[in-house]
Amino acid sequence: MSDIRTQSLQKPVTVAEYLFRRLHQIGIRSVHGLPGDFNLVALDYVPKAGLKWVGSVNELNAAYAADGYARAKGISALVTTFGVGELSAINGVAGAYSEHVPIVHIVGCPSTISQRNGMLLHHTLGNGDFHVFANMSENISCDVAKLVKPSEIAYQIDHAIRECWIRSRPVYIWLPTDMVEKKIEGARLDTEIDLSEPENDPDREDYVVDVVLRYLHGAKNPVVLVDACAIRHRVTEEVKRFIEKTKLPVFVTPMGKGAFDETSEHYGGVYAGTGSLPEVAKRVEGSDLVLSIGAIKSDFNTAGFSYHTSQLNTIDLHSDHCTVRYSEYPGVAMRGVLRKVTERIDMSKLSITPSPPVENAVAENRDDSQAITQAWFWPRVGEYFQEGDVVVTETGTANFGIWESRFPKDVMGVTQVLWGSIGWSVGAAQGAALAVKDLEQDRRTILFVGDGSFQLTCQEVSTMLKHNLRVTMLHYRTLHPWYGRGLQRYHPLELYRYPRGLWRQGRPVSEVRHQDKG
Amino acid sequence: MSDIRTQSLQKPVTVAEYLFRRLHQIGIRSVHGLPGDFNLVALDYVPKAGLKWVGSVNELNAAYAADGYARAKGISALVTTFGVGELSAINGVAGAYSEHVPIVHIVGCPSTISQRNGMLLHHTLGNGDFHVFANMSENISCDVAKLVKPSEIAYQIDHAIRECWIRSRPVYIWLPTDMVEKKIEGARLDTEIDLSEPENDPDREDYVVDVVLRYLHGAKNPVVLVDACAIRHRVTEEVKRFIEKTKLPVFVTPMGKGAFDETSEHYGGVYAGTGSLPEVAKRVEGSDLVLSIGAIKSDFNTAGFSYHTSQLNTIDLHSDHCTVRYSEYPGVAMRGVLRKVTERIDMSKLSITPSPPVENAVAENRDDSQAITQAWFWPRVGEYFQEGDVVVTETGTANFGIWESRFPKDVMGVTQVLWGSIGWSVGAAQGAALAVKDLEQDRRTILFVGDGSFQLTCQEVSTMLKHNLRVTMLHYRTLHPWYGRGLQRYHPLELYRYPRGLWRQGRPVSEVRHQDKG
Repeated sequence: MSDIRTQSLQKPVTVAEYLFRRLHQIGIRSVHGLPGDFNLVALDYVPKAGLKWVGSVNELNAAYAADGYARAKGISALVTTFGVGELSAINGVAGAYSEHVPIVHIVGCPSTISQRNGMLLHHTLGNGDFHVFANMSENISCDVAKLVKPSEIAYQIDHAIRECWIRSRPVYIWLPTDMVEKKIEGARLDTEIDLSEPENDPDREDYVVDVVLRYLHGAKNPVVLVDACAIRHRVTEEVKRFIEKTKLPVFVTPMGKGAFDETSEHYGGVYAGTGSLPEVAKRVEGSDLVLSIGAIKSDFNTAGFSYHTSQLNTIDLHSDHCTVRYSEYPGVAMRGVLRKVTERIDMSKLSITPSPPVENAVAENRDDSQAITQAWFWPRVGEYFQEGDVVVTETGTANFGIWESRFPKDVMGVTQVLWGSIGWSVGAAQGAALAVKDLEQDRRTILFVGDGSFQLTCQEVSTMLKHNLRVTMLHYRTLHPWYGRGLQRYHPLELYRYPRGLWRQGRPVSEVRHQDKG
Repeated sequence: MSDIRTQSLQKPVTVAEYLFRRLHQIGIRSVHGLPGDFNLVALDYVPKAGLKWVGSVNELNAAYAADGYARAKGISALVTTFGVGELSAINGVAGAYSEHVPIVHIVGCPSTISQRNGMLLHHTLGNGDFHVFANMSENISCDVAKLVKPSEIAYQIDHAIRECWIRSRPVYIWLPTDMVEKKIEGARLDTEIDLSEPENDPDREDYVVDVVLRYLHGAKNPVVLVDACAIRHRVTEEVKRFIEKTKLPVFVTPMGKGAFDETSEHYGGVYAGTGSLPEVAKRVEGSDLVLSIGAIKSDFNTAGFSYHTSQLNTIDLHSDHCTVRYSEYPGVAMRGVLRKVTERIDMSKLSITPSPPVENAVAENRDDSQAITQAWFWPRVGEYFQEGDVVVTETGTANFGIWESRFPKDVMGVTQVLWGSIGWSVGAAQGAALAVKDLEQDRRTILFVGDGSFQLTCQEVSTMLKHNLRVTMLHYRTLHPWYGRGLQRYHPLELYRYPRGLWRQGRPVSEVRHQDKG
């Protein structure tokens, strides 16, 4: 009977082929993950679809790497096995959910027959519950597709991938071993998945645009503040065009660093409440209108909720709603609003106070000792960066220090400020560097990670070597191992080590001593 | 007001002190885990309660280590931080749930005030849901204690610890930062937690005992088959006394290996269906009554469900029920039944067919090449073992190979056959060796782990070194990296490396070549 059904299918393909060809179509070239009994047959289809199998050293690292890959390439895929594999990866996937990073997580699971018979299989809790792990992942996925009925699978895969892209968050695809080679309709593959975002309702959008324009035209010294979701929901081009036209001063949050060209005359620096440089805080907090784009106002992104701005002076544009002062507009997405505001703004009504000049990235060194202080280090890092670098900073010291490094043009900042999982950066650097390689771009990936964080995920360096990735790792030691997850910036200074000859200042590598900032 | 309440408490102690003193009382001496913002204050109380802080290199390794510690010491504790930490550990805790290993998992979480205010904190999904991770853990915990109301906390802690011990599975304790130093009644600490198992209902128990005795007395060639839950639910002493009295032949399953003295004349070998040695299979499958104690009849534990025994010839004793042929006795636990059966058995009615002699552990080596084959290797490993060794075998090759190694007296087998998470053994070996050290015992911990598995958790070796643990690691390479999670035993032979001079046979270390078994 299954033969008859197969014959009636147009261009029949196996489920695995369908899935991996879809991943290739949306731009994925490398698939992260680990093999396991319940995904082995599916993995045989990875190379057949033109995809490279990465094979990370463990599932958590693989998830972190998929996160980094998605940030650099737009979207990524992760394959794990039932129970042991997917649960090892779950923290990495949760981080991607938290931080709006789109990962297609494919979990190979026991056959529908084993499940129906309640077999006591390995990688189970021994209680016959085969859905328990998928239920856990439901909390950190914007779609769960359990592929158990061949006639529905193609639609389920397409829907999951679209959700992943549009909502920029992980989806979970549950692939039983006996579904992997089931035949489904391949003719669907001739049409690519529609990944275009739904348009806003035009009347509602026009209404919001009018409100935004009214406030912009009326403001004395408006500023623009760009945050993480401007990057994750892909509106940085819209932001760029808006600034090119309006010449308004632009600031970024810690999570938004890299979203706007820091060499632009319109760029004003990093705003993070009391964590900002004084002139930045003064300018943003003195503004009578902050146009905030893609904000995630979390504790670490706002230096402990220390914004001194008023919601009465704020317009918030988000991927799924907008807020003007206290008026909310659910379902109105920022892209359409930004485009129309750019198009319709009346420059004669716009009052522009230019950005303050960004502080010289390499301040004069007044330190006569051989110690390397954070105050000395981070501004100088900006000198080392080159156009197009991918800069990955670990949670803790580096996440805060990087605020003080100015990026050259087209530098991509990769950081996990909201989820803040220690060790993430090593996997993320692997994934980002692999994406750069897959894109055939000539970019360096530069990783800042401390000793304490590095030990959590250190073996991922072997994957970097295996795939010959261009990663430069800057390693440092902190003085507060107990506070490994803490707000390093608020502690006294730390030590640093780095490769010999990296810096022009010629400080000897062996000279690493501690000195307080104060 | 809180002062008034505190004054009315008898011997007030902080929640953290109460919790950690309870852990000390039940025999825990070392606490595994990693620091994080939401558990830092609690961790300050670890040394104050006489406990050692281990500080593993990442949370998954810490969970694996807590698993190994609990297997060797009876129970263990694991401390992680909210979100990032607990989710990194969740696969290890799920394994402990699956395999009946008692771990008290303490998760430091945001203050009740932050939660009430729905603050956008780091380590959250950014959606204000603070319960999402606890909900995930509920599926792999036999008790969840959310410590949010001081007047209930002492009871909650005691209840969770008791459940953990009695049910021999993980519990989850959720400790908000603002509860850590709340004062609660310390007078309770003067009375230790009652960890005694509930007695069976005497009438029901007597009934089951009568049924068991009737079948035992009537059987021609009964055998005893000891499995994992005999170890985990602590009835190995009862089994020993039962065999000492009855002299019945005893077999163990792969997961039950180590539950019975393999140097005993009553010991017959490892039964695993078609995976058994022929004479073992013949004896067990030819028996007209298999008294099975603490069985977990999973795929890998039964060599792919290949038991050739009939339920009509089987009595199953479990921790929470018994089954005699097809009659079920829920709520009747094996300990009481075993004791009474031992006491009441009528030796004159018992028909004993002795065990077959266990095959010579070191078969003659007929292999002239320099290759090390599995067939050659595993039986010889038994020669290397010493009385009291703790033998940890990784999922895959070692888990299957060890069936063919005979254990000296008091060897503890540590293996994860049901959950089967690759990489687990490295953490588990650390935990088991630390337990041995805490017990001030002079035992070696011997770890068998392949290159592929080792890379997942390799950095845990640094914790072994830091705590100066006595671990001997035997490392090998397999030829089927793609099948890293597979049934290695069914694949052709593998290569081995091992430390120079370990074996008496004098084979050179550098000579590692491949040879097929066939």
